[in-house]
Amino acid sequence: MNIGFLGLGAMGSAMASNLLAAGHALTVWNRSEGPAEPLASLGAKVASTPGRAVQGQVVHSMLANDQAVREVFLDRGLLDEMDRGTVHVNHATISVALARELAQAHAQRGLGYVAAPVFGRPDVAAAAKLNIVVAGHPHVVESVRPLLEVLGSQLWPVGEAPERANAVKLAGNFMLASAIESMAEASALVRAHGVSAADFLEIMTSTLFAAPAYQGYGRLIAEERYAPPGFALPLGLKDVNLALAAGEAARVPLPFAGVLRDALIEALAGGGEGLDWAALAQVAARRAHLE
Amino acid sequence: MNIGFLGLGAMGSAMASNLLAAGHALTVWNRSEGPAEPLASLGAKVASTPGRAVQGQVVHSMLANDQAVREVFLDRGLLDEMDRGTVHVNHATISVALARELAQAHAQRGLGYVAAPVFGRPDVAAAAKLNIVVAGHPHVVESVRPLLEVLGSQLWPVGEAPERANAVKLAGNFMLASAIESMAEASALVRAHGVSAADFLEIMTSTLFAAPAYQGYGRLIAEERYAPPGFALPLGLKDVNLALAAGEAARVPLPFAGVLRDALIEALAGGGEGLDWAALAQVAARRAHLE
Amino acid sequence: MNIGFLGLGAMGSAMASNLLAAGHALTVWNRSEGPAEPLASLGAKVASTPGRAVQGQVVHSMLANDQAVREVFLDRGLLDEMDRGTVHVNHATISVALARELAQAHAQRGLGYVAAPVFGRPDVAAAAKLNIVVAGHPHVVESVRPLLEVLGSQLWPVGEAPERANAVKLAGNFMLASAIESMAEASALVRAHGVSAADFLEIMTSTLFAAPAYQGYGRLIAEERYAPPGFALPLGLKDVNLALAAGEAARVPLPFAGVLRDALIEALAGGGEGLDWAALAQVAARRAHLE
Amino acid sequence: MNIGFLGLGAMGSAMASNLLAAGHALTVWNRSEGPAEPLASLGAKVASTPGRAVQGQVVHSMLANDQAVREVFLDRGLLDEMDRGTVHVNHATISVALARELAQAHAQRGLGYVAAPVFGRPDVAAAAKLNIVVAGHPHVVESVRPLLEVLGSQLWPVGEAPERANAVKLAGNFMLASAIESMAEASALVRAHGVSAADFLEIMTSTLFAAPAYQGYGRLIAEERYAPPGFALPLGLKDVNLALAAGEAARVPLPFAGVLRDALIEALAGGGEGLDWAALAQVAARRAHLE
Repeated sequence: MNIGFLGLGAMGSAMASNLLAAGHALTVWNRSEGPAEPLASLGAKVASTPGRAVQGQVVHSMLANDQAVREVFLDRGLLDEMDRGTVHVNHATISVALARELAQAHAQRGLGYVAAPVFGRPDVAAAAKLNIVVAGHPHVVESVRPLLEVLGSQLWPVGEAPERANAVKLAGNFMLASAIESMAEASALVRAHGVSAADFLEIMTSTLFAAPAYQGYGRLIAEERYAPPGFALPLGLKDVNLALAAGEAARVPLPFAGVLRDALIEALAGGGEGLDWAALAQVAARRAHLE
Repeated sequence: MNIGFLGLGAMGSAMASNLLAAGHALTVWNRSEGPAEPLASLGAKVASTPGRAVQGQVVHSMLANDQAVREVFLDRGLLDEMDRGTVHVNHATISVALARELAQAHAQRGLGYVAAPVFGRPDVAAAAKLNIVVAGHPHVVESVRPLLEVLGSQLWPVGEAPERANAVKLAGNFMLASAIESMAEASALVRAHGVSAADFLEIMTSTLFAAPAYQGYGRLIAEERYAPPGFALPLGLKDVNLALAAGEAARVPLPFAGVLRDALIEALAGGGEGLDWAALAQVAARRAHLE
Repeated sequence: MNIGFLGLGAMGSAMASNLLAAGHALTVWNRSEGPAEPLASLGAKVASTPGRAVQGQVVHSMLANDQAVREVFLDRGLLDEMDRGTVHVNHATISVALARELAQAHAQRGLGYVAAPVFGRPDVAAAAKLNIVVAGHPHVVESVRPLLEVLGSQLWPVGEAPERANAVKLAGNFMLASAIESMAEASALVRAHGVSAADFLEIMTSTLFAAPAYQGYGRLIAEERYAPPGFALPLGLKDVNLALAAGEAARVPLPFAGVLRDALIEALAGGGEGLDWAALAQVAARRAHLE
Repeated sequence: MNIGFLGLGAMGSAMASNLLAAGHALTVWNRSEGPAEPLASLGAKVASTPGRAVQGQVVHSMLANDQAVREVFLDRGLLDEMDRGTVHVNHATISVALARELAQAHAQRGLGYVAAPVFGRPDVAAAAKLNIVVAGHPHVVESVRPLLEVLGSQLWPVGEAPERANAVKLAGNFMLASAIESMAEASALVRAHGVSAADFLEIMTSTLFAAPAYQGYGRLIAEERYAPPGFALPLGLKDVNLALAAGEAARVPLPFAGVLRDALIEALAGGGEGLDWAALAQVAARRAHLE
């Protein structure tokens, strides 16, 4: 199939790579040129403009945030360059408000729109083991299912309105942030009573919390290893803000998210721009003057 | 070995039962008489007073809370009825302050004291698969290790000062409460966007949060099944308060715990005395006027 | 002096009226036509477009929010229709980010920009007793001082960078919201112990809190009189969000603001669109199931 | 009238002094001896034990906290040394739980009990300008009204159940703490945007917040003058904890109080034992890394 792929960060590159490996003809585009090269050497065609990357039957995009998606797809008039019937599969973590706006803009032009945000880091994407939350018109979703199955190990359909998938993604990231903060506070508590964070977290993540989210972030906290970031604090703040905005739009108070927001801002105030959001543990420790 | 066991609630009965099954001579005591009967039929001697239950080499206790422990062991002068060298293994979830006080009171009388709070519900206790956090003087801990190994599948030693084990237990319960609250808020968020809590939690607890704590409580929230309670709201509030007290004593702010406290109180204000603490999800939904 | 005035809500109309009464030649504009009529009958010229209202030496504006200000002044290219040297006095409660952007846009075109947000309700505006926080280039501020003195009883200069005045305004409104919330929670507390909110608030606002902010809102809470709104809940949420955004931009955690945001959202979830933000007291009472 | 007075801290001494000046025969007692001397020189009889100080018709007490009140009046059996009909006027800031317990204990022995907590610092007490919240049986309150009028400028009766007066006092102190925290956060916000806390607070406390509570604490924050403390951080934490306990007992969530608790603990973690609770402003600034 002729496929376009826009946005070649660590995640996008890994995903595009898997589509290529599955035998699809890929035309890729990225704001800067560098990231396209490895894919070109694997056979991808490199588009010099977004418009040239959206001529296939399906267009995947994995852009950084609302602003990038809005700029590329809406402000530049990219949708008007797509043929009727083209399906856009948007993998980005964006606001529910933008998801709704995009769904409408696509529908008005006879374009298909599928929201397909993913859970998983770049290594998971490379291994094609992403968990993909999917929402869109059933026929349209069905039409891209084979492609999604190339990218992930499991699809999680959540209905027709695309923003539902984005709500799920934001709620999931909120749960991740909450897990980190709860380990951060709990670790400060036990440390103040003489137990190391490492010992404590080993107990927790071997028993009640023996899950990937806790084990991964628990290790970072135990080892105080916050750089280089797997998921940086500013991204964490962006996502918590998106969850708060989704809550506000639907009139859902989220008190944990408010606490998270303050802690993330405090981490950034302390110079944490380049740290993993597991550095919330530093904030909890600093508040208790443990260090 | 001659062993005493005080406190025969669901947890204590299951644990005492396993000590009996391992061939130990057990003298049991409980405030009310009923719970001792099944153990008597398994061969336990039933003491009519706590004093008669503390004549063995080791005394286990699994009492309800600080007040019960204080009343039985301190106010009644029970420690003075124990022979020097007796070891008291306290499994209760109590405050770090009381743990410290007990450790000192035992030491002054030449008694051994081991804090051994457990993670696991009654069915886990019955299966002898508890995770037991242990703190106390190394020799003393070593002397009761065979007994602890009868009760649990894994021991987690955290040092000499007994209150450390209690701090770990309280921090662990705080993490559990945080996990519930994060599912509660996240579920309200996705529900307000048209996704059922059941669908959402299935995704989360099959992937990033595939851990016992999330799966168990996730199921209760998905099914809105809060009664009968596995762990009732008032107990949850008690434990969060103990975590807050442990934090205050060591000067550790715990913002998530403050949010939890308010949500638990709100649940109780709404008539939740008899509900499982997973009913925090009701509070989150009610605040969003979802029901 | 020839003066333009854009934005004739309750506040803007009262202010424009005072400028007229002081003998200035006023050209007014409002999105809808009705509000201009009373001013026309007092001698104001009514402009059919914003462009025609910005031909005077000074242009005052009192628009509703960021969006309105951005649309009128930036998106429509209004600044390009103003003569070099014209001074724009912006009274609106807007974000510090937009204030900064506006200051730059004006400077680039040789226009003066003064941020002059006000404290006071419409009746205070009508009585020309507003407290006006002012920031801008000293000479420019000096040039409009006589006009500001017509509008308010006191000017509070806070420096040259215009956004400073907006930060002060947002911080002030945050303090107001906090005062309301603290009365709301405290009232719920005493009510649950048998003391009426009215009795309690009379004590407080006659003694330690004998200040306009507490007395006004205290009365609304005591009488549970939330409609019609003096300052509606959605506006309160808007302003708390602006304070949070100003905090985030400068990396300042604001935990009280997070609590306020949740309470305002909960009030709106309960159908409070048309209520005064003093209805935060309803939220506090509802959480305690007092009604 | 023969009056006893127990507890001669700064507040108690000032109050006892005014009773003496009004011509009453006073027998005073204090845990340590020093504070009684000035009163002795004014004509007070100094009792060597609490028992000797409770032989008058009315006994006032102004002890430090729950523990001191419990120890002196309940644990030592002091109530049994008082003649039937004696009226105890308790001015201390204590928990609603203890107030209830004391009311009952007095009633059982035929003693009168009036809760009469006060608002005002030592200088206000010395000037006999306290605001006194009063609760108790109407006849009993009436019988001590002349004495209360000696101590304060205004009495605020809130009903028969004594704990009501304590609930009001705790709610009032909670409002004070909230006022401080809101100034603390708001000041951090404006400082981060270039406005000094002093300039900002002058505006606020001259206008909307022109009330004693804001002016007094505003000045401390503006001048960063936190020592010596007028009301020390540990006392602030004690009172916020009492408000939280009163809330929990009556099932009233108090989210602002949770935030306050964390901020006070963080201030103490940073070495603030000897600082005024206005030092909450340091915490807000530190979180924003402003210093």
